[in-house]
Amino acid sequence: MQQCKLNTQYLIGYDIGGTKLSVVVADWDGNVLHKIRRPTEAKRGPKAVVSSLVEMSYEAMARTSVPLSNVAGVGVSCGGPLDTETGIVYAPPNLPGWDEVPLKAWLEEEFSVPVFVENDANACALAEWSFGAGRGFRYMVYITMSTGIGGGIIIDGNLYRGPNDTAGEVGHMTIVKDGPSCGCGKRGCLESLCSGPSIARRAQEKARMMPGSLMFELSGGTLELITAETVVEAARQNDVAAREIVDETARYMAIGLGNIVNIINPEIIVIGTILVKAKDLLLGPIRHYLRDETWERVYDTVRVVPAGLGNTVGDLSSIAVIRQGVQNKGRL
Amino acid sequence: MQQCKLNTQYLIGYDIGGTKLSVVVADWDGNVLHKIRRPTEAKRGPKAVVSSLVEMSYEAMARTSVPLSNVAGVGVSCGGPLDTETGIVYAPPNLPGWDEVPLKAWLEEEFSVPVFVENDANACALAEWSFGAGRGFRYMVYITMSTGIGGGIIIDGNLYRGPNDTAGEVGHMTIVKDGPSCGCGKRGCLESLCSGPSIARRAQEKARMMPGSLMFELSGGTLELITAETVVEAARQNDVAAREIVDETARYMAIGLGNIVNIINPEIIVIGTILVKAKDLLLGPIRHYLRDETWERVYDTVRVVPAGLGNTVGDLSSIAVIRQGVQNKGRL
Repeated sequence: MQQCKLNTQYLIGYDIGGTKLSVVVADWDGNVLHKIRRPTEAKRGPKAVVSSLVEMSYEAMARTSVPLSNVAGVGVSCGGPLDTETGIVYAPPNLPGWDEVPLKAWLEEEFSVPVFVENDANACALAEWSFGAGRGFRYMVYITMSTGIGGGIIIDGNLYRGPNDTAGEVGHMTIVKDGPSCGCGKRGCLESLCSGPSIARRAQEKARMMPGSLMFELSGGTLELITAETVVEAARQNDVAAREIVDETARYMAIGLGNIVNIINPEIIVIGTILVKAKDLLLGPIRHYLRDETWERVYDTVRVVPAGLGNTVGDLSSIAVIRQGVQNKGRL
Repeated sequence: MQQCKLNTQYLIGYDIGGTKLSVVVADWDGNVLHKIRRPTEAKRGPKAVVSSLVEMSYEAMARTSVPLSNVAGVGVSCGGPLDTETGIVYAPPNLPGWDEVPLKAWLEEEFSVPVFVENDANACALAEWSFGAGRGFRYMVYITMSTGIGGGIIIDGNLYRGPNDTAGEVGHMTIVKDGPSCGCGKRGCLESLCSGPSIARRAQEKARMMPGSLMFELSGGTLELITAETVVEAARQNDVAAREIVDETARYMAIGLGNIVNIINPEIIVIGTILVKAKDLLLGPIRHYLRDETWERVYDTVRVVPAGLGNTVGDLSSIAVIRQGVQNKGRL
């Protein structure tokens, strides 16, 4: 815990997840002074959860000696769908029972400071762009390769949400026509091929056909226990089946990245989670296949890099949301 | 030919094609006062072509009684690659012998008015957005479905070029992994499936397997003479093979549109050329398949419409370029 400097403006950030809530107090440069975590227990209902967040905020302010008068605003990273204009959250899959929750209005009433609410993928994009691997670029695409595949787009130094707050759904591009079923109801989405569970599913199918694979041994001989982590571990030990899964993953990712590059021509693509953990295995092949998916002149201008923030992305995402919100408000 | 009104500002537009040059004088609302056409004869070299354009401009100004002092600027629509900042054109495939032609500098020296140079797909996007089917929207994607498939993107009421002038290459999204070869060197691009020649190629393959198809009869029994137009004509007469080609085309287009919608969430997608000619056959199925490619909430917000300008798009594209250029310059 650090103490605030007098007369300096601080930011409060909320990360509202399906299982955990966190509240941080940070300065404008993303230095976190204090963090408090509690279980979400979403089924208590949105009012109770917001009460917890408010309590946690006052505690964090007290512990850092940041008075409310020195707080420039509150940023919220939350599962979507949500409306960033009104700050209303609509039934996120990870927050059962939440429906049309006027989060921004409730919090602005409580604190009388500006509140900005952003979906978690966009918030992470803002964090990587403000404090992480995308810092200094004006055109960035962020992709999280995790349980799902989400994304966020920075265009000309601003988060690009699209007119309906639904831009950046890079995980639901179709990569393989009539491919595997995706949680979204479509088939062959990038997410249905390259999310953690999708990599695991492909690995299990491969291992079934190649029973000598090290992946079997690493998962204790149980096909269903092969995970994306198993693939990474086996591939590092040069297991042929695992190497093939990694190579396919890179190829699918490159198709998705190629589509993004051909459409919006970013300067940099920042990829989080699985790519960070397996960058030694994935980054080279993704770049290799991306060359086949783009024109030489375009390929030469785009960087593909692992996310830079690691585990701090959650804390910094909400801080990046309020930082961008307050800055843009000042500009209007 | 119309005569200019006194003290009103006019715009000059150049459409530089591989076979034809055209120069138009128009007002701010896109009303064309006069148009002059000549063959390009690109092999004369860029200096000679630009001399022709300059001569044609003075003739058009004289015929409309628009003095140079009433010309707000010159807009150029030209095959890319080109750099819109410097106005230098780099070796467009349709202008052999052109390489690093400083078009903007030459023309600004001649006329002492602002000159803006834009690649033809972006220029058409600007035209449809300024004067055609995209009028009044702030987030539009334009796709030309012609000999090739190109595109242009309007974001928040401005042409979006990307940091390297290469955004909007929607024709080179990968739609079918390891699919047919594309002119760009990749495989399975939207262009390799849904351009006019690609539709013809797929139709010829289909007709070979279904020799009873009406497409054979319509092309005089010669497989190689089946074109995209043959497909449209046969499909209108309910030929099964042609209907299948149309259906596949719609499916591929919907995958491409779905990717665009998932990434940038436009309000409207305007599709030119083949879609305009075959809208009775294609538009319904494209919309039908697009529903499978997007989330309900997103699908409900996006319109898919045929281009509105028809044969005037060429003239209006260069006028839209200079209109947007002058307007943005005024804003800076």
